[in-house]
Amino acid sequence: MKKLINRPDTFLEESLRGFAAAHADLLELDPRMRFLRRRQLNPGKVALVSGGGAGHEPLHIGFVGRGMLDAACPGQIFTSPTPDQIVQAVRAVDTGGGALLVVKNYEGDVMNFDMAAEMGGDRIARVLVDDDVAVKPAAQGFGRRGVAGTVIVEKMLGAAAEEGCDLAALERLGAHLVPRIRSMGVALKPCTMPALGRPTFELGPDEMELGVGIHGEAGVRRAMLMSADAIAAELLDAILAELPLARRTPVLLLVNGFGGTPMIELYVMAHAARLGLEKRGIAIARNAVGSFASSLDMAGCSITLAALDDGMIRHWDAPVETVAFRWGR
Amino acid sequence: MKKLINRPDTFLEESLRGFAAAHADLLELDPRMRFLRRRQLNPGKVALVSGGGAGHEPLHIGFVGRGMLDAACPGQIFTSPTPDQIVQAVRAVDTGGGALLVVKNYEGDVMNFDMAAEMGGDRIARVLVDDDVAVKPAAQGFGRRGVAGTVIVEKMLGAAAEEGCDLAALERLGAHLVPRIRSMGVALKPCTMPALGRPTFELGPDEMELGVGIHGEAGVRRAMLMSADAIAAELLDAILAELPLARRTPVLLLVNGFGGTPMIELYVMAHAARLGLEKRGIAIARNAVGSFASSLDMAGCSITLAALDDGMIRHWDAPVETVAFRWGR
Repeated sequence: MKKLINRPDTFLEESLRGFAAAHADLLELDPRMRFLRRRQLNPGKVALVSGGGAGHEPLHIGFVGRGMLDAACPGQIFTSPTPDQIVQAVRAVDTGGGALLVVKNYEGDVMNFDMAAEMGGDRIARVLVDDDVAVKPAAQGFGRRGVAGTVIVEKMLGAAAEEGCDLAALERLGAHLVPRIRSMGVALKPCTMPALGRPTFELGPDEMELGVGIHGEAGVRRAMLMSADAIAAELLDAILAELPLARRTPVLLLVNGFGGTPMIELYVMAHAARLGLEKRGIAIARNAVGSFASSLDMAGCSITLAALDDGMIRHWDAPVETVAFRWGR
Repeated sequence: MKKLINRPDTFLEESLRGFAAAHADLLELDPRMRFLRRRQLNPGKVALVSGGGAGHEPLHIGFVGRGMLDAACPGQIFTSPTPDQIVQAVRAVDTGGGALLVVKNYEGDVMNFDMAAEMGGDRIARVLVDDDVAVKPAAQGFGRRGVAGTVIVEKMLGAAAEEGCDLAALERLGAHLVPRIRSMGVALKPCTMPALGRPTFELGPDEMELGVGIHGEAGVRRAMLMSADAIAAELLDAILAELPLARRTPVLLLVNGFGGTPMIELYVMAHAARLGLEKRGIAIARNAVGSFASSLDMAGCSITLAALDDGMIRHWDAPVETVAFRWGR
């Protein structure tokens, strides 16, 4: 296993400590490491809290700060945070407006965030993100997975919360956003979990996995390596089949790296996706290219499209000050 | 070769087009792709121009914008830009204050930037960055390589230029900065050049290369995989041997990923470096963690230390608005 690591059992803790020390101006780490929280809270604002298994950085800890999350709970690698972690995070950042939990659709996360919501009282609501079109909604087990589209949900809800929306309005906005955001990914090389020490799945030297999840879950199909243009076409077709766009609806294009993919390749993919959308007559109003929802050291990428309306554009453009997203005034 | 790619011969062009389209608010790509330039110039300001072989993204194109570079010239992968490219870039962004070229110390870059400076007239000066302590100054060929420390030089010179420093003052500042910035890197996995299709060097499953360059050049020694703490200790010792710090001189710690290294590992390394500096009684006044000067898909990292003074801290903190660095107002 080739990693910058001391020991598997201290890997996450050391990384979180390194992260909190590097970004002490923006956030602070709970002494028992149950959550990272925004340093300056906004009294009365609805608290936005998310979390999930570690290994997807910057998701979620890199999105804690003004205009996005108030707290993020890191679980162990690829493992949901506990209900207790989530309750403690909510208590630390709820300044009177209640709390909205942003949850990716995985059985463990849903169970633990729901339990936390029950323990935390009636001023907690939940938004469930399930943007991965590689999984069919009902047919496969727990339904669609939440992947990189979560970043868009957190950005837009964060802007609305900062603007003063109450809990009920944010819950409605979440219900508006989630079905308008769809993703699909491809892996070129698998990831290696530190505790396991070997790849989570095997890929031949000429193979790739289409529709892979952010934990290296099996996808739609194993295929021979394809060109960037062909990958973009297949991902866009799959996404657009599940995201009917009204005429002239512009999109947000998010090209997400999985952790082991360099920037130069992500922009090749962004270029391919842009040409693919142009060919289909779809306008890109906003875009983001980078590693936002990673899968440890997996190589590959995902494409996310969000069908935009004016409110969503306004929420996307609103100021944000986090480790991974920082723009506006 | 597992890459998001169409063809090796169009790889760079497609990536540059994807990059320029994604960040059209900040910069624009010359139609003949000789350079990327800042969209809004600051009349009379000294123009800051850099460049070098592609494959190190975000260096240099991701640092074009307010407070850093006015233009960056991408050469082919790991190949210097041509003198003509550099002259055209200077002409496009020199608004009357002359131009300062930031050059990494490689034979091809030095030759081509020098030729451009001669062709461009007498209002062009040059700052040469040679921060890599893995190479001894005189003993090995062309001397020390310019690596991730270049980012710090570009940030601080960019702030000073924005503040109104003239060309002579910027040249003096460059001469002040360069000897105060030292780096060293380690590779866990080699990179693969698209045109070559195979790794630039070989590493066994339990091996790493200490002192590697950002083109995968051989380093100080091949070693068995070491822990993050041991790697940090060895890199810090090598850097500090060449960077004598006066008592109480604080440092800027930059932990740089090589392109194939996920964020969670970089923060483990940042934590290890922080503990290592604390043990040596050295205070970290500023820090940056991320992939800034990459080497295609190489896995591994480098550590850079800059011995700070008040002016350098002020220049580091000054507002910047680029793809890779964005802070301040």
